Amino acid sequence: MCYQTTLLDLAHNKPLVIVLSGPSGVGKDSVLKAMQSRGLAFHFVVTSTDRKPRAGEVNGVDYNFISTEQFRRMIAKDRFIEYAEVYGDLKGVPKSQINDALASGKDVVLRLDVQGAARLRQLFPDSIQIFLVPENEEKWRDRFISRKTETAEMLQQRMNIAHEELQRVNEFDYVVVNCTDCLDITVNQIASIIEAEHLKVRSGS
Amino acid sequence: MCYQTTLLDLAHNKPLVIVLSGPSGVGKDSVLKAMQSRGLAFHFVVTSTDRKPRAGEVNGVDYNFISTEQFRRMIAKDRFIEYAEVYGDLKGVPKSQINDALASGKDVVLRLDVQGAARLRQLFPDSIQIFLVPENEEKWRDRFISRKTETAEMLQQRMNIAHEELQRVNEFDYVVVNCTDCLDITVNQIASIIEAEHLKVRSGS
Repeated sequence: MCYQTTLLDLAHNKPLVIVLSGPSGVGKDSVLKAMQSRGLAFHFVVTSTDRKPRAGEVNGVDYNFISTEQFRRMIAKDRFIEYAEVYGDLKGVPKSQINDALASGKDVVLRLDVQGAARLRQLFPDSIQIFLVPENEEKWRDRFISRKTETAEMLQQRMNIAHEELQRVNEFDYVVVNCTDCLDITVNQIASIIEAEHLKVRSGS
Repeated sequence: MCYQTTLLDLAHNKPLVIVLSGPSGVGKDSVLKAMQSRGLAFHFVVTSTDRKPRAGEVNGVDYNFISTEQFRRMIAKDRFIEYAEVYGDLKGVPKSQINDALASGKDVVLRLDVQGAARLRQLFPDSIQIFLVPENEEKWRDRFISRKTETAEMLQQRMNIAHEELQRVNEFDYVVVNCTDCLDITVNQIASIIEAEHLKVRSGS
């Protein structure tokens, strides 16, 4: 029998808040899905949004799709850890999701835009912030194009903003390449980061 | 094809100095051997000592066994990163080993006593310091007894010192339980730590 946990009071065995971020179009959703399909024991926070579902998106899984009116009511009641208007759509992470998960002892994984990650950092300074970067320019552009939701002009505008977001990597703790053709490596690296963070010696913990 | 490394200038892809430490008798050697047998691409630093080899120990693998005279000459020539007299035996890590490995781009793994780890921290403040802890008191004591190299009095003295060393965990970056019956978990955790450290965003790197 292995007493692997016997002495781990020394390490940080409290649940962690883990942020998956990165520039627009980097593929945060596909990484999150790959983590979920691995069956890893995390609580995945579902973001609320007032935008319409894209083809294939499932309510309560990809996002909680709510009306603009509902969203505004939650803002008024201070129910969001953070919310933002992104390209005209409201997106927000309800406080209840993070606090419930932490109370149950589970790590929490959040997918956040770069600006959302910055806000969360202020609220949870101990959160582990992982920045995903695209493996190359071509695949990144392809991902934007495949959405087929915008004009050429809008696409270029989004790409420009995304390139600016890429420069904010230094605000983050870790950088991981989102490798489309080897998503297993990407997920393994994220799993290693989370495992290592649990083994960190934290003074006062 | 995967361009996993394309953008990794953002992360820390310089070689790392990784210290495996922990209290006396925790089993640093067996962890190191398990890492070696995995064939992981590290440079393992071989410590020099003037003590006699124990049964089964191989010169150049377990230690470089040199004479006390040779050891003193190397001290005089400032050839050690650190050296110490431990229980009457001289032990030291030659500078050449670390610098050669780093120059070749390889991570360096060192097994160091707690006091050696403290000295190395001063010389290499960026070194990754991993503290191994025993899985429980019984297995720890058994490990001391199995060495059969000392009297009951010496054993108790060593155990007392080892318990004091255990208190120094807060000087380290990570804590890993050395699980004798599940050494794979121990090695996996160390591998995760090293992988995560390579993915860290380091300002100025």
